[in-house]
Order: sequence, then C-alpha cells, then structure tokens
Amino acid sequence: MVKIEIITIGDEILIGQIVDTNSAWMAVELNKTGFELAQITSVHDDENHIIESLNLALQRADVVLFTGGIGPTKDDITKQTLCKYFDTKLVFNEDVYRNIESILINRSQAINELTKLQALVPENCTVIQNLVGTAPVTWFEKDGKVIVSMPGVPNEMKHVMSTEVIPRLQKHFKTPSIIHKTMIVQGYPESALALKIADWENALPENIHLAYLPNYGIVKLRLSGSSDDVLSLEFAINQQIDRLSEILGNAIVAYEDIPLEKLIGDVLAAKGKTLATAESCTGGFIAHKITSVPGSSQYFKGSIVAYSNEVKVNVLNVLAHDIEQYGAVSKEVVEQMAVNVRKLLKTDVAIATSGIAGPDGGTAEKPVGTVWIAISSEKETISREFHYGTVRLQNIERITQTALLMLNEIS
Amino acid sequence: MVKIEIITIGDEILIGQIVDTNSAWMAVELNKTGFELAQITSVHDDENHIIESLNLALQRADVVLFTGGIGPTKDDITKQTLCKYFDTKLVFNEDVYRNIESILINRSQAINELTKLQALVPENCTVIQNLVGTAPVTWFEKDGKVIVSMPGVPNEMKHVMSTEVIPRLQKHFKTPSIIHKTMIVQGYPESALALKIADWENALPENIHLAYLPNYGIVKLRLSGSSDDVLSLEFAINQQIDRLSEILGNAIVAYEDIPLEKLIGDVLAAKGKTLATAESCTGGFIAHKITSVPGSSQYFKGSIVAYSNEVKVNVLNVLAHDIEQYGAVSKEVVEQMAVNVRKLLKTDVAIATSGIAGPDGGTAEKPVGTVWIAISSEKETISREFHYGTVRLQNIERITQTALLMLNEIS
Repeated sequence: MVKIEIITIGDEILIGQIVDTNSAWMAVELNKTGFELAQITSVHDDENHIIESLNLALQRADVVLFTGGIGPTKDDITKQTLCKYFDTKLVFNEDVYRNIESILINRSQAINELTKLQALVPENCTVIQNLVGTAPVTWFEKDGKVIVSMPGVPNEMKHVMSTEVIPRLQKHFKTPSIIHKTMIVQGYPESALALKIADWENALPENIHLAYLPNYGIVKLRLSGSSDDVLSLEFAINQQIDRLSEILGNAIVAYEDIPLEKLIGDVLAAKGKTLATAESCTGGFIAHKITSVPGSSQYFKGSIVAYSNEVKVNVLNVLAHDIEQYGAVSKEVVEQMAVNVRKLLKTDVAIATSGIAGPDGGTAEKPVGTVWIAISSEKETISREFHYGTVRLQNIERITQTALLMLNEIS
Repeated sequence: MVKIEIITIGDEILIGQIVDTNSAWMAVELNKTGFELAQITSVHDDENHIIESLNLALQRADVVLFTGGIGPTKDDITKQTLCKYFDTKLVFNEDVYRNIESILINRSQAINELTKLQALVPENCTVIQNLVGTAPVTWFEKDGKVIVSMPGVPNEMKHVMSTEVIPRLQKHFKTPSIIHKTMIVQGYPESALALKIADWENALPENIHLAYLPNYGIVKLRLSGSSDDVLSLEFAINQQIDRLSEILGNAIVAYEDIPLEKLIGDVLAAKGKTLATAESCTGGFIAHKITSVPGSSQYFKGSIVAYSNEVKVNVLNVLAHDIEQYGAVSKEVVEQMAVNVRKLLKTDVAIATSGIAGPDGGTAEKPVGTVWIAISSEKETISREFHYGTVRLQNIERITQTALLMLNEIS
C-alpha cells in the first residue's frame, strides 16, 4: 500500500490558534482512494525543522504532502526551504502570474509587490495551478517518491487535492481499494462488547481489521480492509457483518457511521413522527444536537428549557406540589415534563431531563450527577434514573447522548 | 524554554474519523503556562512506529506527551509499548483498581475482565489517577526528560492535563513565571483594531508580547511576558493595559479571558436580573451556552425553542398574521418572540433569534445566513439583521455569539 505522510507547516496549529481540520479531511479522502495515511506531523515555520521532518518522512513514506507556509508574507518559508532541499532556484512563472491576476480581479484587489512574489516557483518542479487562490501547488519527484506542497487555506487545499493532487497520485501509483464499514452498537460498554464478540473477533480474516470507537454509551465498530479485488473484499466484510449481526442483534442500531441525532431524525422522518424536548439540566443541549442536523424542522417542533422550577410549573404545568414533595430531580417531575411538553407542543414523542449537572448542587440523597430522563409517547411514558460524574459539560453531553439512546431504543 | 512534543496515537485521526481537537487545546494550555509546543505527531497503534516517534521526539524535546491508545481493548497498545520501551513490566495497582470501581459504580456498570486490565500499570512509572475515567495517566522520566501517557478521550485528557500534568511539569522544570493578561474587545474587526492601537503596540517593551485572537465579532488581545521577577513584570503589563484602556475605552468589555456567557452571567447576577431566550434558528444553543456556566440558575430561567412556526404561535403567542405577512425571519416576528418570552417566563431581559441556518432553505430575498436577533427588556426592544454564510454549525455559533454580544452591549 502506498504510504503517505502529511506535514503541516505553521505556528497557528502549534500555538492552538486553529484546529487542524485539514488533516482529517485529507485523511478521509486519502483512505477512500486507497492510500494509507501513515503519519501527520505539525511543525513551525522553521527551515531546519521542515527539512528534518521531510527527510524522516521520506524514509518511511512514498509521498509527503505539505500544507501551509506558502503565503506571501515574511513568516512563510516553505517554498524557499524546498528550493534549498532540491538544490534549485525560484523562477518567474507566467501562467501562475496570470492566475494570480485573475484571482485578484475577482476579489477586487490590485496586484502588489507581495502578491507578485507568489508567481515565483522552484525551477525543477511541476507547477499545478491553484484556481481558487494565489499560491500555486508544487510537485517534486525524488528517487521514485513524490513531494507536494499545497496551500493551508482549507478551501484551497480541498480544491487542489480533489481536482489535481489525488488524481495525479492515483495515476502515479497503482492503488488498491480500501473498504471501511462502521456499525453503531448500543447497550454494551466497550469491554463487555469486546468479551461478547471475542470469538468472532479472533476469527476475523487477516486482511480485515477491527477497531472499537467508544463514545458515551455507544461503541462504533469499524471493519477495514484493503485489497486489489474490491468485490471479494466487500463480500468478505459483509459476511463478517452478517455474523456479527447474528451475535448482537438489535444492539446494532446502525450499519453506517452517522451521528445519533441524525439516526434518530431519519427514523422520525421515516415514520412521520414529531419530537419535542423539555430540558432542565441539559439546558437546551438536546434541542441543539437535534437541530444541528439539516432538515430537522421536518420532525422537531421545539423545546421548553425549564431551567427554573417556576418555568416547570408555569409553562410546563408540572404540579408545584410534586416538585415540593419529590424534588425537581425525580421520576414524578420528569415524567410530567415529558408528557406535558408533548401535549403543549403537540408532538408524537417527547424527551425530558432533570438532573444535577454539577459541579455543585448535590445532596447526600441526590449527589451531583443524578439525573432522571423520561421518554413519552401517546402509548407510554418511561423514565430512568442515571448517575454520572461531577464534570458539568461532560454530564450535559452524556445525559444528552443517553436521552437520545433511550428515545432510539423505545420509539 | 522547555520544549514539548505531542504524539497522538490511534487510527481515528489518521483515517479522518475524528478531528484532532485535543492538540489545539493542549497547545493553548501549554503556551499559556510557559512551555513551547515544538511538534505534533499523529501515528497509528503500531509498536515500531510509536517507539520510533518517541525516540525522535526525545532527541528534540524535553517532554513528550502521548494521548490515546490506552483503552482496554486489543487495538490499544500504548501501555504495552511503553513497558517495552522502558524495559519494565505491568503490575496491578490497587489505587487504580479502586478508582475504576468507583467510576464504574457511578456509571452503573460492573467491573469485568477487560476493565480490570486498566488497573495494570508499568512498574517503574509514577501513576497519576484519572478521576474522570478508567485509564490512568502514567509519567516516566529518562535522562532528565519526561514522558507522559494520557487518555485520548477529550474531557479526560483535559481534566488530567489541567489538574495534574501541567502543574507537575511546571514544578519539574521550574519554568519562569509567565504572565498572560487578556482583554476582550468588542466592535472592531481585527485589522481595524490593529490600526487603532498601532502606536501603542509599536511602543510595547521588548519582553511583552501581544497576540490578536479574533473570534466571531470579538478580538481577544493577549499580553504575555516571562520573567524571573514576576512583580515588576506584572507592574509593566498592568501599565500597558492602563494605556490601552485609555485608547479603547468601553470597547474593552472584559479584562480577563472568560467566555462571553460567563461575562454576561456575572453582569446579570451582579445586577440581580434574570434572562430567558426564545430561539428558532439557534435551536437551543444560546440556552446551552448560558447553562454551561455553573450557577447559571441564579439568573437564567429558561428558553422556548420555537423551531416550528406552530410553537411560535401557540406557545410564544407570535401573531400568525405577522408570520404570514413578514415571514418567520423578520423584525416583527423576532421582536414578538423576545417580548413574549420575557413576559411568559417573567424575566427582566430576553434574547430571541430567527434565521436561516442553512445549508438550504434560503430564498432570493432572504438567503441562507440571514438572521434577525432581538433583545428585549422592560425599557426597550431592539432588533438587528445580520448576514452570515451557509455552513450550518458555524452559523449557529456565530448567531449565538452575536446575540450574547448584543445583550452585553445593550444591558
């Protein structure tokens, strides 16, 4: 398999000013097209460090993809460094200059000394036009290996990767096909799941690899394989999934890698059902997760975030007497919240949460992390008590995920 | 300066299943506490590759921080690899076992063979308890250098970094005192702000460094200095802040680096005022941000997430006629939402949002990214129109930040 390494150049990532989303995108695209991404390295705009990283990467990999460090300002030195590495010099490139001109005209900007410098490219490389930005892509070859330098601006990088770099790499190397299939499993902690499927896992063929990706009450199981014969690989992976499906049954809630809120939305949309939430401790986070899915207005009507007891009583019509007697974090209250929001917002199903998110506010009887979740439909209203930790945001995320899982299980 | 490298272990990043947000967070924290993050390396769960990366990192840096690869399943091999590297063996640790037990009891899970394995730790290392997860942190020292292995689960990593790893590194390396002071500036784009304060910036003493951290309508200005004489450094930085304060006046909305939702919460709590939100396009995200602050129940009563027009009319009493005439994304509707939620939830102030978050759903007249935000108090109701992009989650975040800024500006 052709091994690729990414080297990102620039201080922004190493001081945490930006999150490196480029590499994740590139990883997905490279994997899909049959390359193995073997390492990602992030280094500063420092000549020695860049050269050292390139030397090391070329010892391990067939291709090195640089992103970043090719802007027109003084701190960007990738182009100069590559010139030094490949013992060549910068020359003026007429085509690049014309591209810069047309890009800047589009942006209503005049060309200046600095942008003009972008038309200088290393003499002994293949220049690939960047049609969405002013910094060109440069492609070098050395001892059968390929080194490409690309812009770090996400949309420019994505455009040149999709339209030029990956197609050229596929042509240059003959790449095998890669298949990943992900299943989402509910109801098993990671370790219990591993024990449950140990025999199946141990009997997996050598060319199929399993990964566990646990996340708050679900575990994603990912099977990966690579082969020149894509059809028999697909057949073999599907066969394994069928076997696993026999072992785990309904615990497998999805046979694709989608967020839970999307999974639930798809089910609701397919059944033509509508949803509302009544949230106390989750403070609107469940509504946020659900509405983060485009098109969620098809099944989500809204939420009453009843953070104060007053709102629970006045808007959600929870009995004040029950809050007094059982406390806001109780079966009685959370069930009323679920039933009443369902009626108030006229939906088919509803989720309600009431708990102590922390870090303070607990009692001996109801410590921080205690939470009640209810799911209500015309047919039934079910509630459960859970106990989590004391880290507020973690609790909010866990309670949200648990509530979505309960909805998925029940509806 | 003490040099640190991060090595992330695990296939998830290299196949692009997750974005490496951990490293950006760590970069910020390390920079704040006086360390230099020199490189980030992401490698697979592969023994040779992990060892090679560690060897190389130790040639360049004083500290190597591993994240990931320490779960209980077969694919996780970091612990075993470190045992091999440090020529030691795994031993059972009673304290870790008790921590695992208490974590699992909290999660209503039974301990099993695999979770029990988490209590096995390398013999010759310092074990640091992970109070929010089952995988402990291990700390090794070799030739004056420090190697730490941490969980890759973001909240676990953040918790152990903040409470244990960074304080121990500061103690171990006797780092010089670093002072960072951050101001939050509202109302200037980054470049306009830079021009406004250019003279002041150019006259900064050499040992005081300025960074611009722009984020959706605010710019954080961070002054940093390091010195063995912490008192005179503090004096010098405060002097600069006083000068800047004369230049920028009220545009500086905070003299500390706190989230906007905390800033607003502090102001509301100090004035004894209460808040509600009525959210359409933000879908509960404003309520979530506000309730992510511990103690927010003191001033936040709740929210009506009126995602469907039906809820806007039936629960928030928006005039159906106005929705028909002006559209849900209009000055008329958003102002009614704000006024009515304030009355319904009996609060002093209220925020309302209505917009088209995208990626679809726009029209020629109201393209995706169009949003109306209103702030209502007993005294007045103010609304403004904004235009953002087409990326849904980014829009939801921007609208939320803008709404909080409007509230801060007006109240």
